[in-house]
Amino acid sequence: MEYQERVKAAFQAAGMVFTTEELASIEYADFGLGNQESEGLNLIIYVNNDRYCAKEMVLLPQQTCPEHRHPQRGEFEGKQETFRCRKGKVYLYVEGTGNKAAIASKIPAGKEAYYTVFHEIELNPGEQYTIAPDTKHWFQAGAEGAIISEFSSPSDDPSDIFTDPAIKRVQ
Amino acid sequence: MEYQERVKAAFQAAGMVFTTEELASIEYADFGLGNQESEGLNLIIYVNNDRYCAKEMVLLPQQTCPEHRHPQRGEFEGKQETFRCRKGKVYLYVEGTGNKAAIASKIPAGKEAYYTVFHEIELNPGEQYTIAPDTKHWFQAGAEGAIISEFSSPSDDPSDIFTDPAIKRVQ
Repeated sequence: MEYQERVKAAFQAAGMVFTTEELASIEYADFGLGNQESEGLNLIIYVNNDRYCAKEMVLLPQQTCPEHRHPQRGEFEGKQETFRCRKGKVYLYVEGTGNKAAIASKIPAGKEAYYTVFHEIELNPGEQYTIAPDTKHWFQAGAEGAIISEFSSPSDDPSDIFTDPAIKRVQ
Repeated sequence: MEYQERVKAAFQAAGMVFTTEELASIEYADFGLGNQESEGLNLIIYVNNDRYCAKEMVLLPQQTCPEHRHPQRGEFEGKQETFRCRKGKVYLYVEGTGNKAAIASKIPAGKEAYYTVFHEIELNPGEQYTIAPDTKHWFQAGAEGAIISEFSSPSDDPSDIFTDPAIKRVQ
């Protein structure tokens, strides 16, 4: 099945209802890297205003959202976000103690230099974790993929800072 | 079935996974009115910090969350919230044009004086609506009840202003 069809099918199997318009406007982020199956993220944005943001995210099996942080923007503190796993399994990595050699995920091939934080949090359905502002993080789905709800302060993708200098979050 | 068991069953039938701890700590709000089957709201709070809040709410069939608004608090603008219907149907009423005689909901018996806004928004699964700060609103589930996600700015229940002076949101 084509990549976009697999993503749509994953949203539709999430146990949640999406409108036709939402399914037609899924964001298939590839971060400008051209290896979407490995490094990519798929999103439905429910709301993003000047006070809060909520999204539903799909990761295909072992798909990875590359390491990044949300910095302070002028007078505004960096984005804070809460990930709640709805289905499947996701491994989240943040700054803190962690052993690169012992993590459950596999760093995307050839990208070792751009994955630098290894404090591992395993999220199964119903489990959640809040990522502090301006904290480096990346996440990878388990073998069955994952559906993750994100609740957060406002999103401003262009201000995200990725560890991999080749990444362009917004095309 | 007992009230709390019916609410738990509704959460468990929502197509979402909740932890044992979450199901054990559901908030069964009765607003101090003692007629919870008619006027009540049942909540699981995922996160409520100084920047954003997310909750899952259950209304039993025809159950009503009484009319209230979220006022400015000192320097902070009133709470803004986005309701997303996940299952069932909910009728939301906000300030604006509306015909009390023509609404789909039935105002709780004897409480007509405390329901004063009738601009009706019908939300079916996958549909959502954002309520502006400091706007009077109330909502009632359809015949099959409803599951509603709420994404919002921070929640501060004690500051809510209800139209019914008998209501105590926080006991």
